Amino acid sequence: MADVHPTVEAVAADIAAMETRGAAPIADAAADALRAQARESDAETPAAFRAELRAAARHLLDTRPTAVSLPNALRYVLRRVEGETVEALRQSTLAAADAFCSQLDRAQDDLGQVGANRLRDGDCIMTHCHSTDVLACVEAAREQGKELTAVVKETRPRNQGHITAERLRDLDVPVTLIVDSAARRYLNDVDHVMVGADAIAADGSVVNKIGTSGLAVNARDRGTPIVVAAQTIKLHPDTLTGHTVEIELRDESEVISQEQRGAIGEIAVDNPAFDVTPPRYLDAIVTEHGQFPPESIVTLMRELFGEGTTEPWAE
Amino acid sequence: MADVHPTVEAVAADIAAMETRGAAPIADAAADALRAQARESDAETPAAFRAELRAAARHLLDTRPTAVSLPNALRYVLRRVEGETVEALRQSTLAAADAFCSQLDRAQDDLGQVGANRLRDGDCIMTHCHSTDVLACVEAAREQGKELTAVVKETRPRNQGHITAERLRDLDVPVTLIVDSAARRYLNDVDHVMVGADAIAADGSVVNKIGTSGLAVNARDRGTPIVVAAQTIKLHPDTLTGHTVEIELRDESEVISQEQRGAIGEIAVDNPAFDVTPPRYLDAIVTEHGQFPPESIVTLMRELFGEGTTEPWAE
Amino acid sequence: MADVHPTVEAVAADIAAMETRGAAPIADAAADALRAQARESDAETPAAFRAELRAAARHLLDTRPTAVSLPNALRYVLRRVEGETVEALRQSTLAAADAFCSQLDRAQDDLGQVGANRLRDGDCIMTHCHSTDVLACVEAAREQGKELTAVVKETRPRNQGHITAERLRDLDVPVTLIVDSAARRYLNDVDHVMVGADAIAADGSVVNKIGTSGLAVNARDRGTPIVVAAQTIKLHPDTLTGHTVEIELRDESEVISQEQRGAIGEIAVDNPAFDVTPPRYLDAIVTEHGQFPPESIVTLMRELFGEGTTEPWAE
Amino acid sequence: MADVHPTVEAVAADIAAMETRGAAPIADAAADALRAQARESDAETPAAFRAELRAAARHLLDTRPTAVSLPNALRYVLRRVEGETVEALRQSTLAAADAFCSQLDRAQDDLGQVGANRLRDGDCIMTHCHSTDVLACVEAAREQGKELTAVVKETRPRNQGHITAERLRDLDVPVTLIVDSAARRYLNDVDHVMVGADAIAADGSVVNKIGTSGLAVNARDRGTPIVVAAQTIKLHPDTLTGHTVEIELRDESEVISQEQRGAIGEIAVDNPAFDVTPPRYLDAIVTEHGQFPPESIVTLMRELFGEGTTEPWAE
Amino acid sequence: MADVHPTVEAVAADIAAMETRGAAPIADAAADALRAQARESDAETPAAFRAELRAAARHLLDTRPTAVSLPNALRYVLRRVEGETVEALRQSTLAAADAFCSQLDRAQDDLGQVGANRLRDGDCIMTHCHSTDVLACVEAAREQGKELTAVVKETRPRNQGHITAERLRDLDVPVTLIVDSAARRYLNDVDHVMVGADAIAADGSVVNKIGTSGLAVNARDRGTPIVVAAQTIKLHPDTLTGHTVEIELRDESEVISQEQRGAIGEIAVDNPAFDVTPPRYLDAIVTEHGQFPPESIVTLMRELFGEGTTEPWAE
Amino acid sequence: MADVHPTVEAVAADIAAMETRGAAPIADAAADALRAQARESDAETPAAFRAELRAAARHLLDTRPTAVSLPNALRYVLRRVEGETVEALRQSTLAAADAFCSQLDRAQDDLGQVGANRLRDGDCIMTHCHSTDVLACVEAAREQGKELTAVVKETRPRNQGHITAERLRDLDVPVTLIVDSAARRYLNDVDHVMVGADAIAADGSVVNKIGTSGLAVNARDRGTPIVVAAQTIKLHPDTLTGHTVEIELRDESEVISQEQRGAIGEIAVDNPAFDVTPPRYLDAIVTEHGQFPPESIVTLMRELFGEGTTEPWAE
Repeated sequence: MADVHPTVEAVAADIAAMETRGAAPIADAAADALRAQARESDAETPAAFRAELRAAARHLLDTRPTAVSLPNALRYVLRRVEGETVEALRQSTLAAADAFCSQLDRAQDDLGQVGANRLRDGDCIMTHCHSTDVLACVEAAREQGKELTAVVKETRPRNQGHITAERLRDLDVPVTLIVDSAARRYLNDVDHVMVGADAIAADGSVVNKIGTSGLAVNARDRGTPIVVAAQTIKLHPDTLTGHTVEIELRDESEVISQEQRGAIGEIAVDNPAFDVTPPRYLDAIVTEHGQFPPESIVTLMRELFGEGTTEPWAE
Repeated sequence: MADVHPTVEAVAADIAAMETRGAAPIADAAADALRAQARESDAETPAAFRAELRAAARHLLDTRPTAVSLPNALRYVLRRVEGETVEALRQSTLAAADAFCSQLDRAQDDLGQVGANRLRDGDCIMTHCHSTDVLACVEAAREQGKELTAVVKETRPRNQGHITAERLRDLDVPVTLIVDSAARRYLNDVDHVMVGADAIAADGSVVNKIGTSGLAVNARDRGTPIVVAAQTIKLHPDTLTGHTVEIELRDESEVISQEQRGAIGEIAVDNPAFDVTPPRYLDAIVTEHGQFPPESIVTLMRELFGEGTTEPWAE
Repeated sequence: MADVHPTVEAVAADIAAMETRGAAPIADAAADALRAQARESDAETPAAFRAELRAAARHLLDTRPTAVSLPNALRYVLRRVEGETVEALRQSTLAAADAFCSQLDRAQDDLGQVGANRLRDGDCIMTHCHSTDVLACVEAAREQGKELTAVVKETRPRNQGHITAERLRDLDVPVTLIVDSAARRYLNDVDHVMVGADAIAADGSVVNKIGTSGLAVNARDRGTPIVVAAQTIKLHPDTLTGHTVEIELRDESEVISQEQRGAIGEIAVDNPAFDVTPPRYLDAIVTEHGQFPPESIVTLMRELFGEGTTEPWAE
Repeated sequence: MADVHPTVEAVAADIAAMETRGAAPIADAAADALRAQARESDAETPAAFRAELRAAARHLLDTRPTAVSLPNALRYVLRRVEGETVEALRQSTLAAADAFCSQLDRAQDDLGQVGANRLRDGDCIMTHCHSTDVLACVEAAREQGKELTAVVKETRPRNQGHITAERLRDLDVPVTLIVDSAARRYLNDVDHVMVGADAIAADGSVVNKIGTSGLAVNARDRGTPIVVAAQTIKLHPDTLTGHTVEIELRDESEVISQEQRGAIGEIAVDNPAFDVTPPRYLDAIVTEHGQFPPESIVTLMRELFGEGTTEPWAE
Repeated sequence: MADVHPTVEAVAADIAAMETRGAAPIADAAADALRAQARESDAETPAAFRAELRAAARHLLDTRPTAVSLPNALRYVLRRVEGETVEALRQSTLAAADAFCSQLDRAQDDLGQVGANRLRDGDCIMTHCHSTDVLACVEAAREQGKELTAVVKETRPRNQGHITAERLRDLDVPVTLIVDSAARRYLNDVDHVMVGADAIAADGSVVNKIGTSGLAVNARDRGTPIVVAAQTIKLHPDTLTGHTVEIELRDESEVISQEQRGAIGEIAVDNPAFDVTPPRYLDAIVTEHGQFPPESIVTLMRELFGEGTTEPWAE
Repeated sequence: MADVHPTVEAVAADIAAMETRGAAPIADAAADALRAQARESDAETPAAFRAELRAAARHLLDTRPTAVSLPNALRYVLRRVEGETVEALRQSTLAAADAFCSQLDRAQDDLGQVGANRLRDGDCIMTHCHSTDVLACVEAAREQGKELTAVVKETRPRNQGHITAERLRDLDVPVTLIVDSAARRYLNDVDHVMVGADAIAADGSVVNKIGTSGLAVNARDRGTPIVVAAQTIKLHPDTLTGHTVEIELRDESEVISQEQRGAIGEIAVDNPAFDVTPPRYLDAIVTEHGQFPPESIVTLMRELFGEGTTEPWAE
């Protein structure tokens, strides 16, 4: 097996130890690691160089097998590695890693601009959970001078709506906080529903915080437009090959305290973290490359990350 | 103005002081008060007798102008008062009050039987909030020897789902507790959604705990049958005349604690207690008089309580 | 054949000559004619009395075979004729005619009250065509002190929306006039769509000015409630027996002028006056007897006018 | 236990032995048996007379516990038994039995008239399975001089469509026979879908030959009206109390021959005879009492057969 | 700032003065202007050449900031400018401009062919407003020897349906003219709805003459296919970045005459020229590059005109 | 006209004689024939070489003008022919033919893997007709160790469901066979509907065995996911230009025997082999290149086979 550069090992260790956390920092670190590997490689043949890169990628992948942004960084870079000589391979690798990191760096700003353009002065938005991509849209709209108001769902069980409410207040957006069950009652007074995404599948369905799909069905029923704001590192190329996204079941203590539970008696408590919204309930996905109907996002996914049927790091 | 019997005054006082509480006890006490008024009346003319009854009714009504079951008891009895003599009027009043109280007494059991018949051995139900009418259906089904399981929504902000969970456990029904937002994810595994009602309108819409309408829209979308279990004292004859049911806005402290609120900053918190589900999202309303499509419940409403366009207690 | 009283003949002549016009005046005159026939009858046997009444009814019916309110007046009275003696028959006839006329007299006011109760202060309504029943709802709401605004569709080809706009202005309701095609664009800003009816069928479908059904489909799609305001003389008992309402095709000159037509060349111009809206697109029918889901109006139809499978005037 | 008249015993025996078969003949025989019991009773007290009638009803019921029309005949008659003397009871019983049998006798003709009125000259209808009630509609329309054409689904597994095709040919209706799966392709060319019913439930759902519900969903999706033609003896008052209709699973030999089955190997074969269509997919139910939206049929059910929550034959 | 060639200035002047009008002529002139600029440029460095081209583009853009086809022409050409030398840049510019103009020249014919292929002999189409792209489809179908009929909506307020009716008559297509409100009544008799487009957005929604969206919702409800016929110069790349299309509000005199308005009194008159139809109500978009589901048109948009997130003419 | 190589003629003859049958073998043979033509060509100019290839393609196409896979093979190869010399053209042709055949060879396996990934252990699938692509998905899932069960529709008139049942039994999948009409009843117990395709159109609609569209509408109504499993040779580039797929009408003897037909009398029997399912009723199309929303498949179609507006074999 090919050597892995110490920088790669260090990056992998940081990711494994969760010192590097969050979709974007992980993706950035992974691309950076490949850049280091390419820059410092003393491989003598193109084949050896490629084998090293693949090995580095596999090493990085092993740290967090279920993250989405990590393999996207690797796919982006590896499929742009081309050339007949070691030097050409090196240069294309460096260029691809640079391009990836530079796009990533401005992705949220670009996305925010796109989302902001959908909003008009005076609009009211409804949000679910806490998404920095959604907030980027609101922030950009505020910078465009638009006045906005917001209805914020508290988002049980972890109440991330409280964080969203605070951030919106910081942007001078008047906020009305409601329990999740009250959403339908407010949908007719709202101009847009805006949510983030944890992962976006090739069939156009969106994995996001539990409660998103029920909200989307009601938004469609009420005629309220609903958009997903998500950077392309949330696209999930594995789903091109039919893989479904595993839904994490979290600890029941988030839902009910030990005491309350004890008072009720022997019951099960289910705490799924996410749900899946089919594309027919969503109006658009807003990314840093522009907005797309959910049914078309697969085109962007293949353009950026390849077909998915092949794993570019396979030995 | 006609005299009001001391029993009527006592009953009214108890209702006003909330010593008599809950839809059924209030209705029962009101009919009982009319019975006392009729029995003890020394009116000398039919007109005087009728005037006394109307005065008694108005006195009772004044205690809780927004309750639903109270005017229903009065409407039921008053529109069955008939005869040409004081004695005939008295007897018909007593008979009507008896009939009302006796039906009320067995209403939940009868309703439970009807609801139970819809359930099959092995079925799984999903519930929202806490409804003794829904529980009566489950209890009757258990007595019929049917095994059931339940998915219980916690029902923010007051978590009445915890009470439901406990009661279902008492009936040996295995319970899975979930947050409200998780409902859609479980709808395909569930055979019935069963909810109660706070009030049912002439246009077939159902007022119930906030979150019911959003759940109903998702149940319809998933093809899961949804029934409302509600005694006929929840029918709201005022709505025959187009009146809409006022939705109570409760205290924000149910939604967020003073501390959390303070940490977020200046936000509004809305806490509507109920919402309205249009009939097209509901499969049936289960009452003690049998089950009805929501679009037909108006027929039962008029049969029991009259047209609603007239107020039988009007001076 | 039995004699027909001169008053009946006079009433029939006025209806035939269109000196008595409009659904309510015709119904009123018809009931009045039956009252005259009953009051003045010198029939000696119950059978003869009944035969006279039926003959009078047939005579009236012959004047306008397709009107809806005329047979309703006759059905209402004739099915309430009861008794074993001529005098008893006479009295029941007079009582039924009185009841019908008195209800008719206050029907629009009562209906207006019901419709007004659905409206809240500050609401915006959208209307189609010109309906005095809809206006009665708005007027009653204004008298309740509610501020309203309105979006008025012009209602091609005859622009009855202009009349509605003027009447609403008289009620101090700010009006925005739009072309019919613009309706969908405004549906999200509107709280209610309110339309009248030319006839209401037993299957719950509503016959109204062309354009109503397309508007209703869009209102449902947008989640905007839509109600029909119609007095019960618009109920069409013939439809109980499956009869469909004939849709009048009006003159093409309403749609296009001779000159424009000439310039285009040889084309057909279709000008249907009405269309049929199925009940599933309507939220409620507001009548003087209260509001009903469209699917339940058949109950009221049978209560007021009988089964429809029998013609009470049949020889 | 009270005596049962020999005529009742004979009728019961014929039903049990299936010498009396079919919904209408069984209902007719049952009403006839009650008439005999009432006519010949030598009960000396009203209580004894009533007890005899109930015993006769129970005796008849025991023969075919799952038939729908049998209890309907009994319910219809028993709830119209009234009076203070044996003679009054007897007369009311005879009158009720006469009324029931006379209505039953002309029910299909009356229903056919109603259904025919919905059809226009030149219309094309689609049918599923074989229903004499549907054929009565077509026959009446033909007698009205209307030209019709028909698309007939073969209706696997028993191909009752072949019978329908033959009967329609006898009525000079041109027929196109198709496999069941081809229905959707023809729905846009068809003006009405007309089907019969095996039972109609209080919640407005219709139990009919397997395949009806899937056809109804497609008819709604295509905008094609769909009506159910069914005499009121198909109404199922037990469902008022929430009882669901048991779906018969028939022999697998109807679906696949022994040989074919053997060739395939070890598989299960399911052969449900009926399915359940919710009211929201049906436009109207055509009965001998007129047409009704499915959501209103419960009103007719209670009017004819009582509340269903009580069994009039209970000891 | 770089020099702008006199031809560019002349073209810009003609567009500004509206001597060059219409989406296609403007686009053609713009591409032609870039061709002139490139051909005659005496730039000495590639950078200077590119700067000149961008300046020319900006100059052209300034004339009509809201037109769609003008920036499309510029985007198409500018993103195909490539090469390392001035001569290479020049040649690629000329080639791109030639390609654009030649495609534009045959676009309507090609599109007509595609649309015609969807039509079968004997079909009936419904149209809204006046679209030469729709007419191109009909004309091509007629040239294929297909017989067609048409239902033409008059299209208030400006009655462009009259023009469509005349053009269809010229193609020997029998026409039935109707008011806009009558459309739903005819949708079941129609095989296709065909409309044009003023602009098509990245999220698949179509901006077209007011009334299109309401028609589309009804066509979907009735199961009638609806296609948009539009050349790719109607694609609106700005919408990729979330920009919404501004809806022009036209003068009220198109809706109501001064006299009529005066007679009604103080009302507002709104006259929006266009509305927006979401992709889920449309079956296909027919372009000169073939037909696409509306949800996929973004792919064609990016292929032809680039990402839209960058403005190729930016200084 | 250019010469056609004897291998091309032989292949064409075999296809014409139906010795080469089935979508994949025909496509493989066609690509092989072009390879032979290219390899053996002694054309002296690039133009002559290209003319030969086009002639060969036309010769092959003439054998089966309506097959889908044959022109796809030709389109795939011809649009990848590039170069300035005969040798370059030859090499690119050989490479394209090799690529096509090699992809085709493993397409069903790759597709099966993608479809299998959508299935979870314990899932139940419903199938219609017999599709080897669907079976490939099941087989791959079984190889992944997943337990599956299946509900198999018999698929009248030719009962291909029997073949599917047998193949599934061979894979140790427990099977329940039902008549086609029973499908809706089982849709709530089923996790996926999986069907194949005969052709897939550019607008995302799927042509498959008659009954597919009705099943898809019911699956959507029930909330059951439905996927189409189809290799890309089923994509139909002609539909890019608006061409609709001709639906074969097969012999009536498949539907009814001569004897049964004779017994019924003079009727028509229609036997359409396929129907068309619009994309909005389908969740995903599973191909060997991954899964796609039906609305995006046009992108893959253009990528593999070109625009369709040009015929690469045109003289």
